[in-house]
Amino acid sequence: MPGANLQILRVPLHGSCVVSRMVQRLFGYAGKILNVELTRGRISASPLSRELAETFIGGVGIASRILYDTVPPWVGAFDPLNHLVFATGVLTGTRVPCAGRHFVAAKSPLTGYFGDSNAGGFWGAELKFAGFDAIFFSGRAPKPVYLSISDGEARIEDASAYWGMNAREADRAIRKDLGDRNIKVADIGVAGENLVRFASVMSEDAGRAAGRCGMGAVMGFKNLKAIAVRGHNSIPVADDEALKEKATELVKMLNEDERTTGYTSKYGTAGYYSSCVELGDSPVRNWTRGYFEDEEKITGAPGGGYQEILTGRRACIYCPIGCRRVVTVEGGPYATEPRVEGLEYESLAALGGDCFVSDIKAIAKANDLCNLHGMDTISAGATVAFAMECFENGIITKEDTNGIDLRFGNAEALVMLVDKIARREGIGRILAEGTRRAAHVLSGAERYAIHVKGLEVAMHDPRAFPAMCATYAASPVGADHMEGETTFVEGLLHVPYPLLELDGLDRLTAKRKAEAAFKVQNLWHVIGNCMGYCLIACATGATVYPLEYNLAFFELATGRKMPFREAMRIGERVFNLKKAFNVRHGATRAEDTLPERLLKEPHTEGGSKGQVAMLGEILPEYYELRGWDPKTGKPTKRKLEELELFDVARDLWE
Amino acid sequence: MPGANLQILRVPLHGSCVVSRMVQRLFGYAGKILNVELTRGRISASPLSRELAETFIGGVGIASRILYDTVPPWVGAFDPLNHLVFATGVLTGTRVPCAGRHFVAAKSPLTGYFGDSNAGGFWGAELKFAGFDAIFFSGRAPKPVYLSISDGEARIEDASAYWGMNAREADRAIRKDLGDRNIKVADIGVAGENLVRFASVMSEDAGRAAGRCGMGAVMGFKNLKAIAVRGHNSIPVADDEALKEKATELVKMLNEDERTTGYTSKYGTAGYYSSCVELGDSPVRNWTRGYFEDEEKITGAPGGGYQEILTGRRACIYCPIGCRRVVTVEGGPYATEPRVEGLEYESLAALGGDCFVSDIKAIAKANDLCNLHGMDTISAGATVAFAMECFENGIITKEDTNGIDLRFGNAEALVMLVDKIARREGIGRILAEGTRRAAHVLSGAERYAIHVKGLEVAMHDPRAFPAMCATYAASPVGADHMEGETTFVEGLLHVPYPLLELDGLDRLTAKRKAEAAFKVQNLWHVIGNCMGYCLIACATGATVYPLEYNLAFFELATGRKMPFREAMRIGERVFNLKKAFNVRHGATRAEDTLPERLLKEPHTEGGSKGQVAMLGEILPEYYELRGWDPKTGKPTKRKLEELELFDVARDLWE
Repeated sequence: MPGANLQILRVPLHGSCVVSRMVQRLFGYAGKILNVELTRGRISASPLSRELAETFIGGVGIASRILYDTVPPWVGAFDPLNHLVFATGVLTGTRVPCAGRHFVAAKSPLTGYFGDSNAGGFWGAELKFAGFDAIFFSGRAPKPVYLSISDGEARIEDASAYWGMNAREADRAIRKDLGDRNIKVADIGVAGENLVRFASVMSEDAGRAAGRCGMGAVMGFKNLKAIAVRGHNSIPVADDEALKEKATELVKMLNEDERTTGYTSKYGTAGYYSSCVELGDSPVRNWTRGYFEDEEKITGAPGGGYQEILTGRRACIYCPIGCRRVVTVEGGPYATEPRVEGLEYESLAALGGDCFVSDIKAIAKANDLCNLHGMDTISAGATVAFAMECFENGIITKEDTNGIDLRFGNAEALVMLVDKIARREGIGRILAEGTRRAAHVLSGAERYAIHVKGLEVAMHDPRAFPAMCATYAASPVGADHMEGETTFVEGLLHVPYPLLELDGLDRLTAKRKAEAAFKVQNLWHVIGNCMGYCLIACATGATVYPLEYNLAFFELATGRKMPFREAMRIGERVFNLKKAFNVRHGATRAEDTLPERLLKEPHTEGGSKGQVAMLGEILPEYYELRGWDPKTGKPTKRKLEELELFDVARDLWE
Repeated sequence: MPGANLQILRVPLHGSCVVSRMVQRLFGYAGKILNVELTRGRISASPLSRELAETFIGGVGIASRILYDTVPPWVGAFDPLNHLVFATGVLTGTRVPCAGRHFVAAKSPLTGYFGDSNAGGFWGAELKFAGFDAIFFSGRAPKPVYLSISDGEARIEDASAYWGMNAREADRAIRKDLGDRNIKVADIGVAGENLVRFASVMSEDAGRAAGRCGMGAVMGFKNLKAIAVRGHNSIPVADDEALKEKATELVKMLNEDERTTGYTSKYGTAGYYSSCVELGDSPVRNWTRGYFEDEEKITGAPGGGYQEILTGRRACIYCPIGCRRVVTVEGGPYATEPRVEGLEYESLAALGGDCFVSDIKAIAKANDLCNLHGMDTISAGATVAFAMECFENGIITKEDTNGIDLRFGNAEALVMLVDKIARREGIGRILAEGTRRAAHVLSGAERYAIHVKGLEVAMHDPRAFPAMCATYAASPVGADHMEGETTFVEGLLHVPYPLLELDGLDRLTAKRKAEAAFKVQNLWHVIGNCMGYCLIACATGATVYPLEYNLAFFELATGRKMPFREAMRIGERVFNLKKAFNVRHGATRAEDTLPERLLKEPHTEGGSKGQVAMLGEILPEYYELRGWDPKTGKPTKRKLEELELFDVARDLWE
C-alpha cells in the first residue's frame, strides 16, 4: 500500500501545516516539504526529517525514497496515484557555484519505470527561498490548476486561462497576472497537456527544461499547468564566510582554465559538437553514420555555423561559467523571437546530425518549438530521425505525412514534425508516444527505434565511448547521459580525476569501462542528482571543478563531514533504490540492453570506425561491481544491506 | 518486447488476411482470429493455431496466452499497447446447452494486473457465426470508432454519432443504421467513455454485462465504442447427432430438478438472496452486518419484494434454464423503460443489502443505470456502500456531495450516486476511480474500501464460506466470484460433486477449504473460462449439470478426448498463466490478502455469527497445493514445467 511505508517521512497527506514539529534547523536545507493532493485540492507542509536528509541528501535521493514508498507497481504513469516530486539539491539556493539544479521525478510514461529529470536556472533556488526543499504532488486536479507558492504559503489556483498556452506564454502570463515579474515559474506547454510521452517541464520563460522521461506529461495528466514560486528567505549554511572564500578561490580557477571551463564559457556545450562528431560519438542519420560531413555548418566550435544565430550568453544561478547561449533567427521561415534560448550540445546533435539536418536556423527553430511546446529535445530529435528512417524505408508514406517529404536532412520537415508531435496532429499522434510505442504500430520499424527501456538514447554513442554501454543499458531511467556520462573520463577531455582513480583509460577498448560507468554513475548521483551540482560541475564533467571542492562545499554548507567514500556510497544507495523501484515494477535483466543497431552495426567511417557497442564484455563485470544478480538483475540482499536499503526495499526479498 | 514471443500464434499484426494458411479445420472453432490495430486502423485475420487451441482451449485460456506475450509490465492499463482481447468459449455457438459465454481480457485499470470478465447472451455465438473465435485489439483509435463484422469481413467505422450515447441507445442506433436488427452489439456507455475504472462491456441492448475488472474503460481508452457482429455460418462439430441427443437428455434432466435448476429457472439467481442473507454470506451495510432484516423486501425468493417489479424472464443462447429476469418499474422517481434486464443475485446484493437499501424499485433503477452507463454493478454497489460509510464517518461531507444525504439506506442517494459516478460528476469523479484509489484521496477511508488488489469484493462473504478466502485473496484478477465460487461445494446447495471428491465439507471450518478453492478454481477455469459454460452450468454451480456432461459435450463438439484430470490440468495451466502475468507485473505475495474488516471483524449476528475470514489457516495450504513459493508468491519452476508453461513464462525465472 502506498504511504504505508513512510516511516521516515511521517508526512501527513492532509491536514494543516505542522512545521512546529521541526525541532532543529538543518543547514543547507529550507527544512520543509510541501504535500499537495490535487484531486481534492488539499495542501499541507511537513518538516524534512533529519534521517531523510542524512540518508538521501536531497534531489533525486529524496524523490527515490518517496516514490519507492508511495508508487506500487499497479499504479500506472498516467494514474492519479502516480506521485510527482519536485525536489531541490541540498546546495541549491546556497552560494555554492554551479549547484542550482532542481529535479522532477515520477513513474515515467515513457519507460513505465523510475523517471527523473533535472534542470538548472533559478526555479529550484527560488523554491528554497520560499521555504521548501521539495513538493510532493499526488492525485489529479478536476480542471487545470497551478500551484502558487510565496514565502511559505501555497495555494492551488485556477489555470483555465493558461491551458493551451505554450510554456513561454504561460510563464509570462502568470507572472503578469500575479503582478511580480520576479516570480519563477515551472510549467508545461501543449505537449504536456497532450500527454506527449516525452513532454518536459520548462522554466524561465521556456528557457530551461527538465526534459527527460516525460515528467511534463505527468504534470499534464494531473492537470497541473504550472508552479509559480516567489521567496525572500535565504538558506542558512554552516560556515558562510569560509564558503564564500572557497567559492571565490574556485571561480578564479574556473575562469582561468582554457581547456575546459573557459572553452565552455566561450562556446557553450555546443562547442564540443565538432569533437564529438570527429570521435564518432555524435549520432548521425539515426545512428547509421560514423561521421557528419556538414558538422561545421551547425557546430558551436570556433568558426562553426552556430555563430550565425548567436546573440548572447546566459548563466544559471551562482554560475561563473555561463554555458547557456542566446540565439535569434531573424526573418525567413525559421524566424524566432529575439534572444531565445540557444541549443545545448544534446539538442544540437538530436535535432541536427541525428536528423541529418545541417540548417542551423531550422535546428534553432525546432529547438525553440520544443521549448515552447515543452518537449524533450533529445527524444523529439530522436523520434523525428526514427520517423525519417521509417519514411525512407516505406513504413511511413506521404499519405501518412500529408505530403511532407520526410527524408533525412529535410529541415522543413523537421520543424513541421516537431510541431505536429506536440499537437498530436497527423503522424504526430503516433510519434508522440515515443519511438518504442510508435515502432509497435509502424510494422517493421522496431530496428529504427533507438531507445533503452523506451527512453531515446542520448547523444553519445557507446560505440565511441564504451563505458556508455553500461550507463545506458543499466541505468534505471533508460539511456540518459545524466545518469553518469563517462565520455570525459574515457578521453573526451584530458583532465585528471585523482579520487576516482580512472586516469589513463583507453577510449576504444572495454578495459575498466565497467568500473568507469559504476564510479561515474555513483558519483553523479550524489554530486549531481542529490547535491544539485550541474553536469558541468560534476567532477567528471566538462570542467576542472575538482571533486574536493564539490565535497568541501557540501561540508561548509551543511556542517556535515562528507568523505569521498561516504559520498560514493550515498550515490550508490540512490542509484540502487531507483533500480529497486524498477525491479518492483517488473523490470528484468533482459531489459538492460542496447538497441540492436549499436550492438551489431559497426561504424564504417570516422573516429570510431569498426566499433560496435561492447556491451557483452562490459555488462557482466558491471553487474559484478554493482552486486546485482546476473540472472534476474535484482540487487542482491547483501548489496541492499550494505547500502542500508534492505528495510526500505524489503518487499524485494520477502 | 511484446510480440516477440508469439511463436504459438504467429499472428501477423498487419497485412492481409492469410486464412489459407489454415490447413485443417478444428471442430468446435470458427478457426480464425481477427487482429485489429486501432491506431492506424489496420485489420488482419490469422488462423487459430491447433497448438493454441489444444493447449489453451479458448476464452480466457487464449486471452491469457496472448496477453502474457504482448503486454509487458511497463505497459499501463490505459496505454495504446495494452491489448484488449474478446474471445469465445470453444462451445460457444454450438448447440451445447448453457455454453454461450464470451470473454473480455486486458491489463485491468482497476487492479493493474491481469483482468478478465465474461458475459452470456448471444454476442459470443454471433462472433463465431461470423467466422472468428477471438478479436485482438491493439493501439488506440484517433477518434471514436466501432468495429463492424459481417460473415468474415471486418471494417472500422466512425462512431462519432454514437459517442455519448448510453449502451442501450448505441446498440439500437447501430443496428438501425446498419439496417439489420439481428446484429449483435457489444458496446460501452458513458462510464467506459469516461474511463470509470470499473466500466463494463455491455451487449444485447445493455442487457448483458462483462462487468468486472474495468474492461469497458479499456474500450473507452481505445476510443472503441462498439463491436457489431452478424454471422450466418454454423460451427461444425465432430458428432452433431450424438451432441443433439445428449443435449436433449440433459435438458430433460435440468428441467425436472426442483432443488437447483428448476428453482433457478423460476426465481432467478436473485432467488438465492434470502438463503445467502440467512447464512451471513451476503454483505450488508458495507460488510459490517451479518444479517439484513429487510431482505424480504428485495429478495427474488418466493414471496419476496422482487415480485413487485418482475415482468418476465429471458434465456441466453441454447439455455433451457433461463435464469435472467425482466423487470419494469412503472411511474414514480425510479421508473424504467418497460421490460429492462432484471437484477442478478450479485447486483441485488451490491446495490441492495450492501448499501443497506431495501427499496426494490430504487435498486432496479440503479441496476438499470449501471447497465445503461456500462458499469459493473458489483463494483458500483460496493463503491456506493464505501462512500456511504465514509459519509457516516465524516470523511465525505454534504459539501462534497452537493447536499446529498449519503447515509446508508438512502435509496435516492444510491440512484443519484450511480449516475454521478458514470458521469464523473462531483464526488463521482473520485469514486469513479474505485474504492482503492478513492481511499487514497479520502484520508482515513482505507478501512472502508473492501477490495482485493483493487477489485471490489464480490457478494459472497468469506466469513460465511471460508474457501472463498483463497478464491478472493489468491485469484489473479482480485476478489471475483467468477474465478471459482466455492459456496456451492461448501454447502449453499446440497448436490454431490463426485469427480471433485469434495462432498461433506463443513461450512464454517477451514478444513479442506484450500483444496476446495484449488479444485473449483481449476475446474471453473477450464469448464467456464475456456469452454464457455456459464456459472450455472459449471459442475459446482447452482445446477445439477453434471461434470461428466460438461466434458462429454466438449468431446462431441471437438472430437478431442478430455479426461477429467486433463481438464483440471488445463484449468490449472490457465490460472497459473494469469498468475504469472501478475508476477511479471510486480504482484507480490503480500497482495494475496483480504480486507482487514473481513479478517478481523467477526459477524455479530446471523448465520455466520462469530466468524472471521480464516485466511491465515487456509492460504499456506493453498499455496502448497498450488506449488507457489510461499515467500514470493511466484509459481515454482517445477509447477510451470509440470503445466508446460515454462517456455511461455521463461522470463519469470531467467
